[in-house]
Amino acid sequence: MKPNPHFYPIILAGGRGTRFWPLSRKRRAKQLLALDGKETMIQQTVARLAPMTAPSRFWIITNGDLRPAILRQLPKLPPSQVIAEPAGRNTAPAIGLAAFLLLRRDPDAVLGLFPSDHVIAEPAEYRATLSRGIEIAAAGENIVVLGIRPTRSETGYGYIEAGAADRQGSLQVRRFTEKPDLATAKQFLDAGNYFWNSGMFLWRADTLANALREHLPNTAPLLEKIAAAYGTRKFADTFRKLYPKCENISIDYAVLEPRSAKGEGQSRIFCLPSDFGWNDLGSWTSLHEHHVAKVKPADGSLISASGSFALNAKNNYVHAPGKFVALVGVSNLVIVETEDALLVTTLDQSQDVGKVVKHLDEKKLKKLV
Amino acid sequence: MKPNPHFYPIILAGGRGTRFWPLSRKRRAKQLLALDGKETMIQQTVARLAPMTAPSRFWIITNGDLRPAILRQLPKLPPSQVIAEPAGRNTAPAIGLAAFLLLRRDPDAVLGLFPSDHVIAEPAEYRATLSRGIEIAAAGENIVVLGIRPTRSETGYGYIEAGAADRQGSLQVRRFTEKPDLATAKQFLDAGNYFWNSGMFLWRADTLANALREHLPNTAPLLEKIAAAYGTRKFADTFRKLYPKCENISIDYAVLEPRSAKGEGQSRIFCLPSDFGWNDLGSWTSLHEHHVAKVKPADGSLISASGSFALNAKNNYVHAPGKFVALVGVSNLVIVETEDALLVTTLDQSQDVGKVVKHLDEKKLKKLV
Repeated sequence: MKPNPHFYPIILAGGRGTRFWPLSRKRRAKQLLALDGKETMIQQTVARLAPMTAPSRFWIITNGDLRPAILRQLPKLPPSQVIAEPAGRNTAPAIGLAAFLLLRRDPDAVLGLFPSDHVIAEPAEYRATLSRGIEIAAAGENIVVLGIRPTRSETGYGYIEAGAADRQGSLQVRRFTEKPDLATAKQFLDAGNYFWNSGMFLWRADTLANALREHLPNTAPLLEKIAAAYGTRKFADTFRKLYPKCENISIDYAVLEPRSAKGEGQSRIFCLPSDFGWNDLGSWTSLHEHHVAKVKPADGSLISASGSFALNAKNNYVHAPGKFVALVGVSNLVIVETEDALLVTTLDQSQDVGKVVKHLDEKKLKKLV
Repeated sequence: MKPNPHFYPIILAGGRGTRFWPLSRKRRAKQLLALDGKETMIQQTVARLAPMTAPSRFWIITNGDLRPAILRQLPKLPPSQVIAEPAGRNTAPAIGLAAFLLLRRDPDAVLGLFPSDHVIAEPAEYRATLSRGIEIAAAGENIVVLGIRPTRSETGYGYIEAGAADRQGSLQVRRFTEKPDLATAKQFLDAGNYFWNSGMFLWRADTLANALREHLPNTAPLLEKIAAAYGTRKFADTFRKLYPKCENISIDYAVLEPRSAKGEGQSRIFCLPSDFGWNDLGSWTSLHEHHVAKVKPADGSLISASGSFALNAKNNYVHAPGKFVALVGVSNLVIVETEDALLVTTLDQSQDVGKVVKHLDEKKLKKLV
C-alpha cells in the first residue's frame, strides 16, 4: 500500500500518567518512560508511525514541563512542531489547533490522532489498519476511529457501539458510551459489536475544522487566530493569551458524541475494528500483565533489580534497580522504588496510585510529583 | 540492696541475628543495631547493668567481625575484656572460658550470663530480680535461671518446668524443655508452672568451672589453658590453637539439661520468675509488636521514613529512611530498605528472613551478608 502524502500524525503528549508514580513525575511523565523495552513510550509511538511518513510531518502537543525531555528523546522531529500548551485544555482544543495549523499548509491534510503512551504488539498490522483508515478519512467528511476488539469486561474504557458494515472492513458507529459498570461491560463483551475506544482517530483537517466550527463556535475562532500567528513573532504571545480562553473539553465530548447522535449512516463516523496487540498500560497492574504475557515467568513475578531471592512468593511486580530484592511470603504486590520514594501496593489496587500523587499535590511536596 | 562486689556480667555478643536482614549484617549484627531507641541493643544491655557494677567488671564474648564495632560502641569497657573467639563454638565454651578467667581473678566471682540483644522494659525491676538471683547464686553451688512468665503459647522458645517454691521467690527447676509444638505450648501456658528460658543465668565461677569439668571433660582443660595464657604474649596463639578444639555445644545442652535430670532438689537449679517487660526481639514481627505496644499507632503501622502516605493500609512495619513511602491497599507487611537491599515480607513469615541470608551465604554474595 502506497503511503498517503497528506498524512500527518498528531501525538498528544501532555498527560502526567500519575498512576505510574513514583517512576512518573511532572517532568518525567509516563510517555517519557521506557516501560516496555529500551525506547520510551513516545519514542515507540513515533517509531511505529515512522514508516508511514517523514519526520517533518509529525506534530506533538505537550506542555512546558515535558517539552525539553521530548525534544531530547526525539531529536529528528522539527522542534517547532513540538508545541507546549500554555495551559491544559483537554483534547478538543489541542487537536483543533493541529487541524487549523495543517489546513494552512496542506488543504488535503489527513490527521491521525495518537496517544503517546500506549503499546502495540504488532506494528505492521497496526500500520495496515491505519492505511485503510487514512483512505476512508481522505475520501470525504468521514471520521475514523480505531476500535479495539475487547478481550475482557473492562470498566476502565469508553466503548463504541458499531452498526452496519461499510467499505474496507469499517463499521458505522451507532454511539459512543462512557465507562460502563461491570454488568454493562459484560453485555458489551458478549454482544460482539462493541469496541474499546482507543483514542486513535483519523480525519481530514477540513473535516475536523468544520466540526469544531459547528460544535465549539467560541473556541474555533480562537484556534484559527493562534494558527494564523504560528511562525510569526506574535505566536508565543497570541498562544499564551488566547489558548486559555478555549473550552476545556475532550474531543469525544465536544464533537464525537453529538455527531454520533445524528444517527448511524448520518454521522459519518466509522469504526475500524483493530486487532494489533493494543495495550494502554493504564496502571502498574496492566504493565505487569503485559510483561507476564511476553516473558511468561514461572512464578508470575517480574523483578527488575540487581539480584533477587523469592521464597513462597508469586505474581509480584518489582522495580528496584540497584537493590538486591528479597521477597518472603508475599504475592500479588507491586513494589516500585526510586531514589526518593518507595511505593508498595497490590495488583488489585494499583489503579489508586494516582491518589498518592493527589495527596502529594495537596501537601505541596513538589519534589516528589 | 547493696551491690555484690563479686558480680561480673558476661555478655554474649557473637550472634549474627540474621532475622534482621537486611539491616543486620555480618559486621553489623542485631546487637549493634538501635532497634529500640537511640542506643544499640548491646549499649542498652550494658547500660541497664551499669548501676550494679563497675565498667571494669564487664566481659564481652564476641567474634572478630563484630569486635571493632563493639569497642566503638562501648568505649568505657576495658578492650582486653572484649574477647573475639577465633571460631564460634556455641555458648558452653564461651561461658566456660569466662568462668576460668574469673576464677583466677576472684575466687568468689559470681557470673551473670546475658544475651546482648534483648529489650527489658522495666530495668529497675530487672535489677531487683538480678540482685535476688545473685544472692542465691553466691550462696553455694546453685545455678539460677531467669524464667520469663509466658504471655502467649510461643513455640519459638525453650521452656523451664518449675517445681516447689524455694527461698527468695525462686522455684526449683524440674526440667528444661526444647521448643514445644503449639498444643504443648498451650498446655505449658495453662499449667502456670512453665517459664520461658530467657538465656540469663547466674552462678559462681567455681560452680560453673566444676560443672564444665564434670560434663565437658575434654573441653574444660582446654579452656583452663587458654585462661592461664590470658594476659601473656602467648594468649592469642593459644586461644587460636585450642579454642577450635572445644566442643561446639550450648550451655543448656552441655550442663543444664543433664544437671536438671538429677531431679528437683538435687540439681540445685533455681528458676527466678521474672516479670520486667522482657522481649527477645526475635524477628521483625516481634520488633513491630514491641513498638506497637509502646507507640499505639491508630492503624497499627510503624513507618520510619522521610514522609509517608497510607491508603487502605494497616499493621505494616516499614523501615526506609530517606524515602517517601506510599502504601496503597497493603496490610501486615514488613518492608525494610537499606542502601543495597530491599526486603518485603509479612508479619506472619518474617521469621523466615534468615533463609534469605542462608541463600546469600550459599551464593557467596558477601557484600550483602
